[in-house]
Amino acid sequence: MRISQGVEWGLHCCLTLAWADNPEPLPTAKLAARFDLPSAYLNKRLQALMRAGILTSTSGSRGGFRLARSPVDITLWDVVAAIEGEETAFRCTEIRQRAGASPDECRHPCSVALAMYTAEAAWREALSKQTLADLMNASPEAAPTRARRWFELNRR
Amino acid sequence: MRISQGVEWGLHCCLTLAWADNPEPLPTAKLAARFDLPSAYLNKRLQALMRAGILTSTSGSRGGFRLARSPVDITLWDVVAAIEGEETAFRCTEIRQRAGASPDECRHPCSVALAMYTAEAAWREALSKQTLADLMNASPEAAPTRARRWFELNRR
Repeated sequence: MRISQGVEWGLHCCLTLAWADNPEPLPTAKLAARFDLPSAYLNKRLQALMRAGILTSTSGSRGGFRLARSPVDITLWDVVAAIEGEETAFRCTEIRQRAGASPDECRHPCSVALAMYTAEAAWREALSKQTLADLMNASPEAAPTRARRWFELNRR
Repeated sequence: MRISQGVEWGLHCCLTLAWADNPEPLPTAKLAARFDLPSAYLNKRLQALMRAGILTSTSGSRGGFRLARSPVDITLWDVVAAIEGEETAFRCTEIRQRAGASPDECRHPCSVALAMYTAEAAWREALSKQTLADLMNASPEAAPTRARRWFELNRR
């Protein structure tokens, strides 16, 4: 089981945007250059964050991304769900049916699927309790200073 | 993010072995036939469960698998870790280093990685709290009866 790299990219880009507190939108190319990431792939992740209402985007030559809401209102689950999707990591394929479970039994999830979903709910809850603001507070002091300096050097 | 189908297979096979409470080992081919699964792929998962000390295996013409310990002593995390591996689902690639984080800062995990690991610990803990015995108790009454009847029909 592996969480895609896009989640790491997305969270670090959101942190940069939060620290930059940018009045002007930041284009994908600038964010990609900051973290040495492939711009086209990163753009897909940023578009996903935009569709989920975490970022806003402006098109055009001075276009780019900004946070759509305050860092206290963006949870880690918001970002993970936007990039990985909301489908459960455990996907029940109902193999009990091949072992003779009746249609009546199969109206409810089996004990295996229920237990796996319960554990996954604990993970989602833990992600939902942590916000982008918490990540900012837990970062070393040098991180926001560095992000703001970078933003000043890269604004148009 | 997706948990491999092998976890579903492994848990259902462990349940079958627990219900059969088999004095004779059950070969992979019988378990594969019960759930209509590809025998070679299933065998790899059962071997992984054996290496993790969840199953014991006997080789030879009357060989096969049994549970290595009581269902109360097998947690869902044991099975998931045996099949998926113990590596974290979130893999930090340290992209902060490309954005200028100092070697001194990077001696500790960044706030993004720590938050993701914290959430994953909640998932692992929830899996560790549930045992194979709990799955047995949460299954419909017909399930153990069906497994035992199947075992009687399939013993050698």
